Formats: sequence, structure tokens, C-alpha cells
Amino acid sequence: MIRIENLVRDLNLVRERSPLIHNITNYVAMNNSANALLAVGASPVMAHSLDEVAEMAGIASSLVINIGTLEAEWVKAMLIAGKTALDRHIPVVFDPVGAGATSYRSRVCMQIIEECRPSVIRGNASEIIALSNANARTKGVDSTNSSEAALNPAKALANETGAIVVVSGETDYITDGIAVETVKNGNPMMARVTGMGCTASAIVGTFTAINPNFLEAATHAMFIMGIAGEIATRTSKGNGSLQINFLDTLFNIDEDAIRQNIRL
Amino acid sequence: MIRIENLVRDLNLVRERSPLIHNITNYVAMNNSANALLAVGASPVMAHSLDEVAEMAGIASSLVINIGTLEAEWVKAMLIAGKTALDRHIPVVFDPVGAGATSYRSRVCMQIIEECRPSVIRGNASEIIALSNANARTKGVDSTNSSEAALNPAKALANETGAIVVVSGETDYITDGIAVETVKNGNPMMARVTGMGCTASAIVGTFTAINPNFLEAATHAMFIMGIAGEIATRTSKGNGSLQINFLDTLFNIDEDAIRQNIRL
Amino acid sequence: MIRIENLVRDLNLVRERSPLIHNITNYVAMNNSANALLAVGASPVMAHSLDEVAEMAGIASSLVINIGTLEAEWVKAMLIAGKTALDRHIPVVFDPVGAGATSYRSRVCMQIIEECRPSVIRGNASEIIALSNANARTKGVDSTNSSEAALNPAKALANETGAIVVVSGETDYITDGIAVETVKNGNPMMARVTGMGCTASAIVGTFTAINPNFLEAATHAMFIMGIAGEIATRTSKGNGSLQINFLDTLFNIDEDAIRQNIRL
Repeated sequence: MIRIENLVRDLNLVRERSPLIHNITNYVAMNNSANALLAVGASPVMAHSLDEVAEMAGIASSLVINIGTLEAEWVKAMLIAGKTALDRHIPVVFDPVGAGATSYRSRVCMQIIEECRPSVIRGNASEIIALSNANARTKGVDSTNSSEAALNPAKALANETGAIVVVSGETDYITDGIAVETVKNGNPMMARVTGMGCTASAIVGTFTAINPNFLEAATHAMFIMGIAGEIATRTSKGNGSLQINFLDTLFNIDEDAIRQNIRL
Repeated sequence: MIRIENLVRDLNLVRERSPLIHNITNYVAMNNSANALLAVGASPVMAHSLDEVAEMAGIASSLVINIGTLEAEWVKAMLIAGKTALDRHIPVVFDPVGAGATSYRSRVCMQIIEECRPSVIRGNASEIIALSNANARTKGVDSTNSSEAALNPAKALANETGAIVVVSGETDYITDGIAVETVKNGNPMMARVTGMGCTASAIVGTFTAINPNFLEAATHAMFIMGIAGEIATRTSKGNGSLQINFLDTLFNIDEDAIRQNIRL
Repeated sequence: MIRIENLVRDLNLVRERSPLIHNITNYVAMNNSANALLAVGASPVMAHSLDEVAEMAGIASSLVINIGTLEAEWVKAMLIAGKTALDRHIPVVFDPVGAGATSYRSRVCMQIIEECRPSVIRGNASEIIALSNANARTKGVDSTNSSEAALNPAKALANETGAIVVVSGETDYITDGIAVETVKNGNPMMARVTGMGCTASAIVGTFTAINPNFLEAATHAMFIMGIAGEIATRTSKGNGSLQINFLDTLFNIDEDAIRQNIRL
């Protein structure tokens, strides 16, 4: 069970420390993710070259790996960065975009999980179900399953991998395989903004950088996402303004906004 | 001649079916294109790896190929995806960004057209003129010709290739080589938003996914673009807000907005 | 010392001539940079393929090289384009993103400076200090030094390389090694928008395309950035709206706005 004071403490820590978050992410979400990290108070860096990725991961406070627009060279970089982070006890957050949509994606996901042993895996229901070997078929990168249907697969995946598993959806579930936290904040319109899930993974990466209790850190991050998204939706006319209002809300979110909007 | 009820029918079909649109597009326009597809009701996926591109094209409802920031590996992926789509009778929309600006672009365009036989080719006047071998010189990726000047080249290109050809401009022309549809909606300020043409191609891809009459589908798509752009421009102070308002308008566009704004 | 009439003259020249600016830049900032160039009146093209980069650089009015998300193939393209531009006396603006953060970045910076001899180098304080061999450590891509601390390193770098050196910060410094121009317009919130520095480099590239006095051109560009950013910040609630308002302000900036807001 999440305590608001811990959530606020972590948010304040992010802003005080401005942790460097190393992202190897997709082309679609790079700009949004970087802006969301700047909005929440972190310092983003995007770097994927084989010539520097280990060095960059070594100076970061956490690493976010997202396979949205993967290709062979990038996967190599992800594995090098992930193993470097693992060796140096830097948390790795893994976003298995489109797992199950193609066999290549599923294979790469398995390899990243095995070799980099992520601290947190965050995906939508279809992706988490695909990863836990249920018979799901992912339609592209959007989920065709409800997050509830993915709760047991998420637990199984957490138990298999040792990672905290986050399922995003109308309700978000965050589990270590036994305990389950739920986040009910948010709005379905968020799924109509491209890269919103990728942004969630980047924010999870940020909170793991300042809180070694990754179940709590990931839950805090999802609350921040959900609360900011819910507030932003109120004044948004479509996915264009939501993308912008979300950043503005994240930029300004504080204890008051959290207390007034959190749904526990 | 376009009938409003058919346009509305297609828009509703997009929203009901949420077709999966596979995009191999450029870095600049990826985020905008994805958001525009989500706004109109489609489900975008961006994937370009040689390891998955055929599989992804095989599960998509249409494929959009855009060479804006092309390079050798991406061109290979475009050709594989395009040929897969062709074999499986999945419509291919081709956006020949910057055709004529460099000899490499012109060569790649010819190869894609020959090997993937796109259902629709959409470009600005300079690009369409360049493709139809007129003596045009494209200045970078912005058109230096009026769309009217490209009408005859567009017809010639349609006849040569069997594709529907769309010329974007102050007036859009859509032709199968004989019939010509015109779309007068829109606003010149749209050309000041980067990737607006690329977005148009993605929307054309969406409508070809639900309407096998590609002349009609492409015309419907260009009306949706033009109407949404025209409405969005009214409340925009510059290209920043236009980019956002365009998405919001596309998100909300409905029969009423179409009937009130269409210029037939 | 900058004269307002010269600044206005250059802005008007940009809008009259709409120079083609060839950008080899990073994935994060591509969309913003392209929109900023369109907003100010230039014509952007993004192209990085080894198969066309020399030809594209050859038809451009200036070349902007930015290593934000560098990798080996892109560096090759940067060097080819840069050397082509050098041979053809086309100004090259170099943005050494993250110089000093990894040894690879520092090495690549040195190579680009040596082989392409940029007309202007624009970076934040940490990057400029890193390039001038001071003992700085860059934290990712955000500066940890004040721009003032980089003034002497900037002069040294200008003297070593022959380039105009621009240090962005609370006060911007622009120097040819002897003369120093300062720009006090701007707002610290601009640093919270990803790619704002990259956009500054693109705007510098634009002004070098129409004014062969690169010290003046770069200073004009930084004034336009600072004034537009300062005006935009006034109506922005966070980094989301600032990104958009900045583009809108740049789109509309004119002599009146300059005269009312410039701080000389």
C-alpha cells in the first residue's frame, strides 16, 4: 500500500538530484520521453552507439531500454548497455513494445530479459501476456487485452524473471510476483497519445534511480503518470493538446495536486 | 465526384475497425504521423527492421512507405515490406519525399515504384513532376511548383505506374490517369508544419485500408486532411499551435464538421 | 556591438530567400528543429545517407551538424557533408552535444572540427569547456557549468579553430576569439525543453546562410532565439506549452517584437 508522503518524498528527490536517465528508446517517443523527463525534473540522455553505450550507461542513474523501433545494431547496444548497468547495479527498466506482434520482437525480449535482468518490465496487457507465454497475439503496438487479464501473467513473469512487472491500462498493476499495487488514476484518452507508454517507462526509470525499493518506485511513477494524465485530460480537446498539457502538468505537479487527485 | 455520405462512411469505418497501419517513414514525421493516425482512429505501427518488416507488413491493413530520411538499410526494408504487401494485396502508399532533390532519391523512388507497385503515390508538385521525368529540380523537400503545374505529370505518372497519384498543394489533385478529383480545403500555413505531407500519406494509407476504391479512398483522406487543417488554422497563431490543433481537430472531426466546412 | 536594424535586415533576408538548411542532427530534436526553421522562414532538409549527403550539402545554403544521437555511420556522413560544404564555401555550424560526456563524443568532436573546420561551434558551457580541453566533465547533455565560466575557454577554442564560438546559457556569449558579443534575452525555462540548444544551432545555421559576417550572424540568431524564448515563456505553463509557444513566437517575430524585447 502506497503512502502519499513517500510518493511526495520521491518526487522531491527526483527534483533535488535530477538523476541522469540513459534511454535507448524508439524514434517515435524520443522527444516526448526526453521532455517528460525534463518536466518531472530528471536529466535525460539518449545514446545508442556501440562506441559509447557502455560508458554512458556507466555514468547514468538508471537505464531505460525500449524496443519500439528496434533493429539489429540497436539491440546489440541495448544488450551492452543493459549488461553494463547490471554489472554496476544500475536499475534497468525494460519496455517490450510490441512483444508478440512479430516473432523477432518476442525473441529480442527474451534475450534482453535473460541477459540484462531488468529491475522493472513495463508494458501493456497484450505485451505482458505475450511475454509470459500466454497465447496472446499483439496487434501492432496497441493492447487488445484489458490490464486485468494480464494480472496473473504479470505475476508469473515477475516470478520467472525477478523483475517488478508493471501492466499499464485502465487500472495499472504493479507486482513483484506476490504483492500487487494498483493505480486507478489516468484516463483512456492517454492511449491515444503516441509514446505515452514509453514515457511511463522513462518515468519509472526515473523513480528507480532514487528509490531502491523498485515495487514502490514503479508504483510512485505510475501514480505520477496517472495523476498528471488525468489532470491534463480535463483541459484537452484531443490527443494533440493532451500531449502538451501532460508535459505542463508533469512540470507543475506537486503535493497538493497529488493529494487532490490521487485515487487510493 | 465525391459524395459526403461516402466520406462520412469511410471515416466511421476507420473508427470502427481501427486498422493497423504499418509505417516505414522518416524520423522527422514519425511522432506526428503516429499521433495523426491515433487521432483519426487508426492503429499505427512503426517498424523497419529487416528481421521483422515482412511479418509486420503481413499483419497490417496497409503499408505507408516514406523516404524522407532514407538510407540503404531502410530502403532494403521498404522494398521487402512493399513486396510482401504487394503479394498479399495489402495497399501500399508511397511518399517520394524530396524526389528530384538528389539523384539517389530519384533512383530509390523508381525502384520502389517498380518493385512495390504502390496503390497510391502522394507528393507535392515538385516531387510528382520529378517522378514523371519532367525537367524539375526539387529544392530540398519543399515544393517550388504549384500543384496545378503537376496535374498533367500526375496523370502521366498514374498511367505509367497504375497508381492513384495525389498532388498536394493549394488545390489537391487526385487522379487515376483519367478521372481527376480536386480538394480545395486546406490552408497554405499547413506547409509550414514539418511532416504535414507525410501525415497526409499516412491518412491516405488509413483510408485505403478500409476502402478498396483507392481513387475515392485517397480523395476522402485528402478531404479529411484539408478540412481538419483548415479548421485548425483558424485558431492557430503559428506552426507550433497548428501542429497541435490539427491533431485535436482530426481527433474530433465528424459529419457536422465535414458538412459545414467541405468545399465541393 | 549589434545594431537592431542589421538584426531586422537579416531576419527579413531569411524570409525573402528562405535558404535551404541541410541538417544532420539527432533523432530527439529533428522535428523541433525542422519546425523552428520553417517558423523563422527557412527551408529545412534532413538527410544523412552516405549515398546523397554530399549532393545535398552541395545544394544547401548552410549545413548544421549535431552529434546528439551519433553513431559510426552518421559520423561518416557528417564528415563527408562537412568536407563538401568546406570545399564549396558553404558555412558549417557544429553542435557538439554531450562533448566530454563520453570519450567517443570528445573524439568525434575533434575529428569534425579538424576535418570540416566549422564556421560556428555552438554548445552549452560544459560542452565548450570540454572542447577547449579544460578539465570539465559533462553530465549527459545538460550543462553543469555557467556560461560565464566558459567564456575564456570559448575564446581559446575560437582562436584554436578559427570558428566563431557560441556559448548558450543564462547569458549567451558569441566570440571570434577577440571580440565578444553577449545576448541576455532568454529564460532558464528554455533549458527544460528538449532540443532547444539544437534548435539554436539550426537558427544559427540559417543566419550564416544569409550573412557572411558569422560573428554578427550568430549573434543575430541567438537574439532571435532569446527574444522568442523570452516572449514565449510568458504565456507558457510548462515545457510542453513552451515548445509550442516558442514556435508560434518565432513564426510571428518582427521588428516591433524585437525592439520591444531586446536587451542590449
